[in-house]
Amino acid sequence: MKRKSTAILASTGMVGQRFVQLLEDHPWFEISVLAASERSAGKKYKDACVWRMETEMPKEIGEMTVVNTDIKSVKKASDVDLIFSALPGDIAGPIETAFASEYPVLSKAAAHRMEEDVPLLIPEVNPEHLELINVQRRRRGWSGFLSTDPNCSTIQMVMTLKPLMKFGLRRVIVTTMQALSGAGYPGVASLDIIDNVIPYIAKEEEKMETETKKLLGVFDGEKIRPANIYISACCNRVNVKDGHLEVIYVDLETKPSVEEVKEAFRSFVGEPQILNLPSAPKKPIIVRDEIDRPQPRLDRDAGRGMSVVVGRIRSDPIMTIKYLCLGHNTIRGAAGAGILSAELMAAKGYI
Amino acid sequence: MKRKSTAILASTGMVGQRFVQLLEDHPWFEISVLAASERSAGKKYKDACVWRMETEMPKEIGEMTVVNTDIKSVKKASDVDLIFSALPGDIAGPIETAFASEYPVLSKAAAHRMEEDVPLLIPEVNPEHLELINVQRRRRGWSGFLSTDPNCSTIQMVMTLKPLMKFGLRRVIVTTMQALSGAGYPGVASLDIIDNVIPYIAKEEEKMETETKKLLGVFDGEKIRPANIYISACCNRVNVKDGHLEVIYVDLETKPSVEEVKEAFRSFVGEPQILNLPSAPKKPIIVRDEIDRPQPRLDRDAGRGMSVVVGRIRSDPIMTIKYLCLGHNTIRGAAGAGILSAELMAAKGYI
Amino acid sequence: MKRKSTAILASTGMVGQRFVQLLEDHPWFEISVLAASERSAGKKYKDACVWRMETEMPKEIGEMTVVNTDIKSVKKASDVDLIFSALPGDIAGPIETAFASEYPVLSKAAAHRMEEDVPLLIPEVNPEHLELINVQRRRRGWSGFLSTDPNCSTIQMVMTLKPLMKFGLRRVIVTTMQALSGAGYPGVASLDIIDNVIPYIAKEEEKMETETKKLLGVFDGEKIRPANIYISACCNRVNVKDGHLEVIYVDLETKPSVEEVKEAFRSFVGEPQILNLPSAPKKPIIVRDEIDRPQPRLDRDAGRGMSVVVGRIRSDPIMTIKYLCLGHNTIRGAAGAGILSAELMAAKGYI
Amino acid sequence: MKRKSTAILASTGMVGQRFVQLLEDHPWFEISVLAASERSAGKKYKDACVWRMETEMPKEIGEMTVVNTDIKSVKKASDVDLIFSALPGDIAGPIETAFASEYPVLSKAAAHRMEEDVPLLIPEVNPEHLELINVQRRRRGWSGFLSTDPNCSTIQMVMTLKPLMKFGLRRVIVTTMQALSGAGYPGVASLDIIDNVIPYIAKEEEKMETETKKLLGVFDGEKIRPANIYISACCNRVNVKDGHLEVIYVDLETKPSVEEVKEAFRSFVGEPQILNLPSAPKKPIIVRDEIDRPQPRLDRDAGRGMSVVVGRIRSDPIMTIKYLCLGHNTIRGAAGAGILSAELMAAKGYI
Repeated sequence: MKRKSTAILASTGMVGQRFVQLLEDHPWFEISVLAASERSAGKKYKDACVWRMETEMPKEIGEMTVVNTDIKSVKKASDVDLIFSALPGDIAGPIETAFASEYPVLSKAAAHRMEEDVPLLIPEVNPEHLELINVQRRRRGWSGFLSTDPNCSTIQMVMTLKPLMKFGLRRVIVTTMQALSGAGYPGVASLDIIDNVIPYIAKEEEKMETETKKLLGVFDGEKIRPANIYISACCNRVNVKDGHLEVIYVDLETKPSVEEVKEAFRSFVGEPQILNLPSAPKKPIIVRDEIDRPQPRLDRDAGRGMSVVVGRIRSDPIMTIKYLCLGHNTIRGAAGAGILSAELMAAKGYI
Repeated sequence: MKRKSTAILASTGMVGQRFVQLLEDHPWFEISVLAASERSAGKKYKDACVWRMETEMPKEIGEMTVVNTDIKSVKKASDVDLIFSALPGDIAGPIETAFASEYPVLSKAAAHRMEEDVPLLIPEVNPEHLELINVQRRRRGWSGFLSTDPNCSTIQMVMTLKPLMKFGLRRVIVTTMQALSGAGYPGVASLDIIDNVIPYIAKEEEKMETETKKLLGVFDGEKIRPANIYISACCNRVNVKDGHLEVIYVDLETKPSVEEVKEAFRSFVGEPQILNLPSAPKKPIIVRDEIDRPQPRLDRDAGRGMSVVVGRIRSDPIMTIKYLCLGHNTIRGAAGAGILSAELMAAKGYI
Repeated sequence: MKRKSTAILASTGMVGQRFVQLLEDHPWFEISVLAASERSAGKKYKDACVWRMETEMPKEIGEMTVVNTDIKSVKKASDVDLIFSALPGDIAGPIETAFASEYPVLSKAAAHRMEEDVPLLIPEVNPEHLELINVQRRRRGWSGFLSTDPNCSTIQMVMTLKPLMKFGLRRVIVTTMQALSGAGYPGVASLDIIDNVIPYIAKEEEKMETETKKLLGVFDGEKIRPANIYISACCNRVNVKDGHLEVIYVDLETKPSVEEVKEAFRSFVGEPQILNLPSAPKKPIIVRDEIDRPQPRLDRDAGRGMSVVVGRIRSDPIMTIKYLCLGHNTIRGAAGAGILSAELMAAKGYI
Repeated sequence: MKRKSTAILASTGMVGQRFVQLLEDHPWFEISVLAASERSAGKKYKDACVWRMETEMPKEIGEMTVVNTDIKSVKKASDVDLIFSALPGDIAGPIETAFASEYPVLSKAAAHRMEEDVPLLIPEVNPEHLELINVQRRRRGWSGFLSTDPNCSTIQMVMTLKPLMKFGLRRVIVTTMQALSGAGYPGVASLDIIDNVIPYIAKEEEKMETETKKLLGVFDGEKIRPANIYISACCNRVNVKDGHLEVIYVDLETKPSVEEVKEAFRSFVGEPQILNLPSAPKKPIIVRDEIDRPQPRLDRDAGRGMSVVVGRIRSDPIMTIKYLCLGHNTIRGAAGAGILSAELMAAKGYI
């Protein structure tokens, strides 16, 4: 099978670099265009980019010339089948819209996530929301389309909430301890985080509270009816490189036992597993029984960074169940999420 | 006024060193005896102790000879008015009981905290529980007595719960991010915490859940009737030297506004403030209005480490109010707590 | 005595904040003007400045209005006796020159350090270099003058080299492990330093190598003849908040014993100690005999951050002596250095 | 080819775990016996061992029963072709001697390194020293033998010194910044290293100074004549998980240029590369030209942790050349070193 040709927007940033790393030797996709800001355009990727991944930059990628982030430049550089956008949230809006009129655009940015006709996708959780693409095209008259991935801290939480829906999920209280890489580069100043915790991440709590309702909502043929649940989040930054840790309290109508909840986690699979997509982890959720797991450094690479690891699942005297959940925020929470979404779209014929 | 003579048990450990540091130039107490294990007995304090405080060891203390931890050795060393015990929880039990038959003993250990006739004291919160000392002496026939301080993570939380009692406190969900010094020395291995969070602290959650009910309970003349509240705790260790940060969700019957809660925190004072005790902070609770405070490194030394700092006080869609609370775990949470308790006892004639 | 009136340039940055902190209650100087960039001018200091010191911002300072960094604005704000410049090196040049034509300017920036008629001063090391001010005024026709403080990593090293000059100092090899605060704010990205060392600090090695020769040079009535020594530096950034640690190897002609070197360190005093200047530490150099000292966190506050702490002094098979040296880079290495320089100038009648 | 059967002593410790990890799927060796202290003997490996590697414990290894560390227990458990000893230095001495009388023993411990008839081996550096085994057997009458690997900080330095020998290496000054894992587990207390550097590692400097002379010495048919060079080391512990960083100053007789030194590093290969041993990195030394490399987190995994990475190679005004060198201390510096040594011995018929 001929591999589909992709462009990466904001390819020199942290998420962009992760896309480059994860797409090396991908069976379905190849990188044809690396786009970035004007400052980088015209340079070789290896000169435009301060590479911060622990693996080496793929040689042939390093030799590619970066192009400017506009349709004309991308078009001139190559025929492209789909576009991964790692643009920062504050500038993503109009640029992504422009590209989406002609190309399938998969965006990591927050700009369009909550728009009525834009899918907000976690392949294991709400693949049926992809049908919004048809609504979107019809309404907007686009040949391309726009789909979005949720916020990193939302993705890993919602993957664990999905299998709890059958117990009647009503309320969620979540406290996060999030990694430095979630703030991009340069991101958090070292002077702010050494010997410290920062109990605030701008807009993060709002994202967790609103995105979750859309993700767990029902597609009624025209739009998503949000899930009728209450969510309260408190987000903190801790001195960890990668891997968000979340303490989650859930109130469940049918009062399942701890063992039933564990079993729901363990047996959870979604379309990516059924379709055996290249980036799909065998187990979307890994349950650890040790008393002191999950831990960011020990568990973030589970399932090549695509599994979510849960532990300390206990019954709770106030809510029903409490547990911890951990995910790799720049793989499952960012570039890996985008690639898995693209794989699902390819398997289903959207691209 | 002649200063009261004190002995410190486990004086060479982390909490013991903090007692030595905080008692330097204390107006009411002086250190007469430094006790430690057999290994240290007979040595000068400066030779027996690997000093880990950032201030210098007081010179004359360094020259004192450490004695063994038994009544005979202490008695031989000096006449002592009261004893601070920084003994580790697993050995404190019988040793403290032995000393308490003759001396007032103020213990930081968990061993006796939940015994029916033993006060568990936070001077600002439940000074009336000191009357248990009379019950205890009557029952046990002791000339001395035993009083205990709560666990570090409990103290700072309960100081903020006390002023919320008037709003009808019913339920508390708390997630902690606790400092390394809480585990003593050597405590947490650096290999375990670098680039990591450990989501488990042995027995910590149980302590927060049980001690809180006793602390907020009512003394009925003979014993404490525990407060009728539900508490659920999830405790984590983060890479911070000092200062526990806690995310607290409270359910309050009378549904006060955020402003009413802030005002309750700001106006809170207890007997230590009224009696103007030497170690009492002017404000037991400091309210910060910045969006990203309290932070461990910036706020732990507030009120010379004796104030608790709260921030991000917000109304909550599930419980009533959520907020963050920070305290210095080895000052307000340990040695400073013991000294303030002793000051209250002295002011009230118990010692 | 009426206190002299001072202005601080770049008062909202890290070094500027440290000036504000250290000048609180200073017996000789008071802060009359806080200057900063246009963005801050017109705001109250407390609103213009993200305060990062661990102590509270002095209340009355917080209420002062920040002025723009130009002579007219400063003049309009107050009569000023001297100016502390914490301007970043890349913009300090012409601004400091402009101010120096009318005011005594004490600069922390590198811009003018190596100019022939500009003193580069460590009060304990080369107070006689202050006479360059007369040369400078004569040559430039200024009513004010310009004096500079060395780079932070240079200051602490040269303070320990000065007492070794009598042994015939010929060659110095130094490897540094420098703190994060040396890079200013935001400075080093947390993602770069977590679980890491960065073996490069721009221009730092050159500064150590060139400044040292000027500092240890001889004033011949007209200019400084640089010391005839060889210096080789390798500078590294480590994950420490404050306190530069330096491993120093020195080749000394007269081959003193370890004990002679220790004694030279211990007995070293300079004019600040003789004149009993307010910020002068009693001991400029503190010798520690423990096998594992100095350590940044334990020793950086020695002498209120103004002493340099040395340890592990040993004879060396290749050079003559090797030892470690530690100093607080934002106190002795920056704001404290500027204030001590100003005190010396005041005592000697230059301001 | 039938794989050789190995036993690992101290298999549950940090280095032991690294042996288990690196020997998974090894083409020449298989693990037949896991030995540990009495406390662990009789348990399954997965129960005896707190696994701290970031990869999962191999399933079948976890099910193996740990045996006590004595010849009888090992013999009873399996026929064994060679023994890897990860025993701590203070107990390794007599145990290794006992095993070596019957088995080939490859030791990571310091106990026997400097004995006259015991090889101290770096396969790329001094493979000819293996002939000492014949001397040893003859003298001691053993059917087995004992060979040792150097200290971790020595190995990586000496790998870079070897190609400099041709320039007439005379003197070496080295300052190290060493990782936490070098101290084993639990090793360095987190309270000691947070926001800090510890400028002392017991016996480390002596090891670097003495081992280097033996490693670079000449085998004269009966013993090693140590290299005639001077070495001075200063060793520091920094807050890094894995990867020792070393600043090295060398004095070279023939005064090569920087480019000649780089070329000597780049072109360096040893017998492991010529024999294409399974664990041999293609390039024993990798030269990086960026101004800020090598860095521990970014470079420690080069060559699957078996390459040494050098950078910042510059001419020096005092010595001849200065540069930085980085190696993975628990792979190239410990378990990987032992395995590569065993591979060389197997290829050369010693086992």
